[in-house]
Amino acid sequence: MSSHDIFLGETIGTAVLILLGGGVCAAVTLKRSKALNAGWVAITFGWGFAVLTGAYLAGGVSGAHLNPAVTIGLAIEGGTKWSDVPLYLASEMLGAMIGAVLVWLVYYGQFQAHLTDPEVLAAHRTDGDEGMVDPKAAPKAGPVLGIFSTGPEIRNPIQNLMTEIIATVVLVLAILTQGLNDGGNGLGVLGALITSLVVVGIGLSLGGPTGYAINPVRDLGPRIVHALLPLPNKGGSDWSYAWIPVVGPLIGGALAAFIYKLF
Amino acid sequence: MSSHDIFLGETIGTAVLILLGGGVCAAVTLKRSKALNAGWVAITFGWGFAVLTGAYLAGGVSGAHLNPAVTIGLAIEGGTKWSDVPLYLASEMLGAMIGAVLVWLVYYGQFQAHLTDPEVLAAHRTDGDEGMVDPKAAPKAGPVLGIFSTGPEIRNPIQNLMTEIIATVVLVLAILTQGLNDGGNGLGVLGALITSLVVVGIGLSLGGPTGYAINPVRDLGPRIVHALLPLPNKGGSDWSYAWIPVVGPLIGGALAAFIYKLF
Amino acid sequence: MSSHDIFLGETIGTAVLILLGGGVCAAVTLKRSKALNAGWVAITFGWGFAVLTGAYLAGGVSGAHLNPAVTIGLAIEGGTKWSDVPLYLASEMLGAMIGAVLVWLVYYGQFQAHLTDPEVLAAHRTDGDEGMVDPKAAPKAGPVLGIFSTGPEIRNPIQNLMTEIIATVVLVLAILTQGLNDGGNGLGVLGALITSLVVVGIGLSLGGPTGYAINPVRDLGPRIVHALLPLPNKGGSDWSYAWIPVVGPLIGGALAAFIYKLF
Amino acid sequence: MSSHDIFLGETIGTAVLILLGGGVCAAVTLKRSKALNAGWVAITFGWGFAVLTGAYLAGGVSGAHLNPAVTIGLAIEGGTKWSDVPLYLASEMLGAMIGAVLVWLVYYGQFQAHLTDPEVLAAHRTDGDEGMVDPKAAPKAGPVLGIFSTGPEIRNPIQNLMTEIIATVVLVLAILTQGLNDGGNGLGVLGALITSLVVVGIGLSLGGPTGYAINPVRDLGPRIVHALLPLPNKGGSDWSYAWIPVVGPLIGGALAAFIYKLF
Repeated sequence: MSSHDIFLGETIGTAVLILLGGGVCAAVTLKRSKALNAGWVAITFGWGFAVLTGAYLAGGVSGAHLNPAVTIGLAIEGGTKWSDVPLYLASEMLGAMIGAVLVWLVYYGQFQAHLTDPEVLAAHRTDGDEGMVDPKAAPKAGPVLGIFSTGPEIRNPIQNLMTEIIATVVLVLAILTQGLNDGGNGLGVLGALITSLVVVGIGLSLGGPTGYAINPVRDLGPRIVHALLPLPNKGGSDWSYAWIPVVGPLIGGALAAFIYKLF
Repeated sequence: MSSHDIFLGETIGTAVLILLGGGVCAAVTLKRSKALNAGWVAITFGWGFAVLTGAYLAGGVSGAHLNPAVTIGLAIEGGTKWSDVPLYLASEMLGAMIGAVLVWLVYYGQFQAHLTDPEVLAAHRTDGDEGMVDPKAAPKAGPVLGIFSTGPEIRNPIQNLMTEIIATVVLVLAILTQGLNDGGNGLGVLGALITSLVVVGIGLSLGGPTGYAINPVRDLGPRIVHALLPLPNKGGSDWSYAWIPVVGPLIGGALAAFIYKLF
Repeated sequence: MSSHDIFLGETIGTAVLILLGGGVCAAVTLKRSKALNAGWVAITFGWGFAVLTGAYLAGGVSGAHLNPAVTIGLAIEGGTKWSDVPLYLASEMLGAMIGAVLVWLVYYGQFQAHLTDPEVLAAHRTDGDEGMVDPKAAPKAGPVLGIFSTGPEIRNPIQNLMTEIIATVVLVLAILTQGLNDGGNGLGVLGALITSLVVVGIGLSLGGPTGYAINPVRDLGPRIVHALLPLPNKGGSDWSYAWIPVVGPLIGGALAAFIYKLF
Repeated sequence: MSSHDIFLGETIGTAVLILLGGGVCAAVTLKRSKALNAGWVAITFGWGFAVLTGAYLAGGVSGAHLNPAVTIGLAIEGGTKWSDVPLYLASEMLGAMIGAVLVWLVYYGQFQAHLTDPEVLAAHRTDGDEGMVDPKAAPKAGPVLGIFSTGPEIRNPIQNLMTEIIATVVLVLAILTQGLNDGGNGLGVLGALITSLVVVGIGLSLGGPTGYAINPVRDLGPRIVHALLPLPNKGGSDWSYAWIPVVGPLIGGALAAFIYKLF
C-alpha cells in the first residue's frame, strides 16, 4: 500500500465518517433540523452507517482503519507495518477535523439558530448552576459540544476510561476477526457491513455512560475544531475530559490485539 | 446495454423508488394513515429501502442509476457513455413522475381526508402568517408538498445548495466505489444493499436542513405532479426553491467523479 | 421438488411467517406485553424479519413462496409448475392457520388480560358508536382482529384493492428478480435478506392505508382462526372486508409476472 | 475442533453476547444513561447485534453456539459430538457470568445512581404493594434484575414455558438451517448476520410475554451474578422463575432438532 493511498484513503474515509457521525448528532440536537429529537436509535444507526460509508469508500484504498485504535491493534497483531503507523494516525486526524468542519457547513444555519435561541441558552445556564443540580452531572461544556465530541453522563475517570476500553476491545476484536476472514487488513464489503452493525450494537449497548468515542481522532479532532470555529455562545470544549476518549481507545485497541493472539 | 433496457429499467426502477420514497412521506404525514407520526427513523429507512428495491429491480437491466446525479457522475468517470445520458435522464424523469402519481393512488382517501380536515388547514394557515412566525421558517408551500418534494427548514440558498452538494458527493462516491467492486456500472446485489444503507445514513446524518433530495428527478418530477394533480386545498408548489435540489445534486455528482479520479 | 418437500417447506415456513408476523402485532397491541406501543418501525421490521425467517427455513426445501401471490406469479412466469400450484396454496393456507394458533398460545395470558380489560372494551365500544365518529372510520371488527388480519383505515374498496395490488406488484417483482439472480425459483440466503428488507420497505411506505396484507393466506388464514378461537369478547371478524386482501394480492402477483416479462 | 478452541471461543463469544445484550438493557433502564427509555426497538436490535458480534468473533474458533439450546440441538442433529457438550455448556456458563460482570463495570456509576435514587426505590416499592396492583403483575424481583435476567409480565408457568419453547424452536431451526448452508456447524459470516436478524425478529414478535431468554445461560449466569454483586438495594433475584428460562429453551432446542430431521 503506497503512502499516497494511505493518505488519501484515511483522510477521505475518516472525513466521511465524522461528517456522517457528527452529522447525526447535529441532526437530532439542533433547532430547525427535521430530525430534532429523533432519539438514540437514530444516533446509533447514524454512526453505524457512517462507519459503513467511510469503510466502504476507503476499504480498497487504505484498508479503512479510520481510527488510531484500529491502527495500533493491527500494528501489534502484525497486519499493518509500524513504519506506516505515523502516516495512518496523521491522516485520520486530518480527516476527522475536515469532517467536523463539513458538519458545520451542512448545518450552518441550524448552528446559528440554535446558539442564538434564548431558550437553549437559558437551559444551558441552568444545567451549569451548581446550586440546582448535582455538579457531577453538569459538564463544563458548551451547548453544541456534543455534536463534536463525547462526554460522560457521570464524571468518574476510572469508570469512564474502563467503559471506553471495554467498548473498544469489542470493536477492534471484530475488525481483527474481519481481517482474518479477508486474508488481509483490508475491509471487504460484507466485512464492512458486519463491522458497521457491530458499531451500532456497541452504541446501543455500551454508549450509555460516555457516548462511545471508541476512536481517539473521532473525539479529539472535532474537539479542536469546536475550539477553533467562530460559533456564537459556543461555551467551553471540556478539555479536562479530552484525554479519556484518547487514552481509553488506545489501550482498548492494544488489549484487543493481545486477546486476539490468544486464539 | 440496449436503449430498450435503459428505458425500461430506469423508468420502472425510478417509479418504484419514488412510489416507496414518497409513500413513506405520505405514510407518516397524512391523517388516517396507520403510520402517522412514525418519525425520522421510519422516513430514512423507508427511503433507503426504496433505493434498495428500485436498484434491485433495475440493477440487471439498466444498471439502476435512478438519479441524474449518478448518471452524470458515471458519465464523467467513464462507466456510462455520454450518448446514453439523454435517455437515462428522460427515463428517470418519467419514472419519478409515474411514482408520484402511484403514491397519490395508494393514499387517495388519505389525501382527501387530510386536505379537507379543518385542523390541518388551520395549522397550515397559521404557519404562513408572517406576523406569527419567522418568515424564513414559513415556506410558501402547500400542506402536502413535503410528500412530493423537499424543502428547507431555513431558507438560505447558499447553505441549502452546499448541503445538497455535500450529501450527493457522499452518495455518488459510494456508487462509484460499488461500480469498482462490481467491475461495471451495474449494481450487484450486495452493492445495492450497501448503497441503500448509505442512503439511510445520509438521511439520518445530512437530511436535517433540506430533507436530502440528492437526486434532481426525485424532487422535480413529483413537484410537477403536485402542481398538476387535482388535490383540494393543495397550496403552492414552492417553485422558488425548486432549482436547488436540481442544481445541487448535479454539482455533487460531478464533483464526486472528480474526487473519485484522485484515487 | 417433491410433494413432500413442498408440503413441509410451505407449511412450516408459512407457519413461522405468521407466528412472527402476527406475533409482532400482538406484541405492540396487547396489554401486559413488554413491547406495548413499540410503534410502526417495530411492526414493519417485525414483519420483515418474519419473512426472512420463514424464507430462510423453507428456502432450500420448497423455494419458500409462503404466499399464493408469489406462487401465482411464479407459475405465470414459468418458475413453478401449474400442477404444483394446488399443493403450494393448500400448504400455505394450512401454515398460516397454524401460525395464527401459535400466536394465540404465545400470548395466551395477554389475550385474556386484554379482552377482559374494562378500558379496552369501553374504548372499543366507543369506536363503533356511529353517533360519535365517522362511520367509515369504524370497522366492524373486534378489538384484537388486527393481530390476525388487516383492515383499512378508510373503507373504500376501490382504493383498498388498488393499494393491495400496487404493493403486491412491488413484492412479486422483487421475488421474480431474485429468482433470476439465483437461477431458480428458490430463495438464496442473500436474496432472502433483500426480499425481507423490501418487505420492511413496503410496510413503511405502502402500509398506511390497509396494513399491507400483500398475501392472501396471511390475511384469510388468521381471520378464520380468529373466528374459531375461544377468545372472550373478541367481536366480529369483519368478513365484509375479507375478499380484498385475497383478491388484491392475487391480481398483483399476476400483474407482476406480466410486467416482469416485459424485460 | 480442539478443547482449547471450544473453551476460548465459547467463553469469549458468550461474554461478548451478554456484555452487549445486558448492556442494552442497562442502557435503556438506568438513570443517567444517554439511552434511557430508548424503547423496544433499541432493545431488540441491541440483542440482535450482540448475537452478531459474539457469533462473528467466535464463529471461526468454536462454531459460536453461545447457547446450550443450540449445543443440545446440534448434538441431537449430529453436528456436534456429545463428548464435547459438557465443555460447551461450561464455557457458555462461564462466559455469560463474565459478560454480566462486565455490564456492571461499564455501567458502574449508573447502577449506583439508579439504586440510590429515591424515586426509583419508591416506585419499586409500590409495584410490590399487593394492595395497589394485581399481585400476578408484581414480580418478586429487584429494580435492576431486568438488566441481568428475564421475567414474565404475567406469571403463568405453562404459558411462560410454552412461549420460551416456541421462540427457541424458531431460533434453533434457523441455526440448524444455517449449518446446512455452511456445510458444518460453524457460523459463516452471512449466516451470522441472518441469525442475528432472526433474533431481532424473535424479540420483536415473541418477546412480549417473557422477555425471550431463548438461552439457558443468558438467563441463569447473569441471575447468579445479580445475586452475588455488591449492589445497594438490589432486591431479590426471583429464583422462583429461574427454572423456566433454563428448561424452556432446552426443550425448544431439542424439539427443533427433531423437527429439523423431518426435512
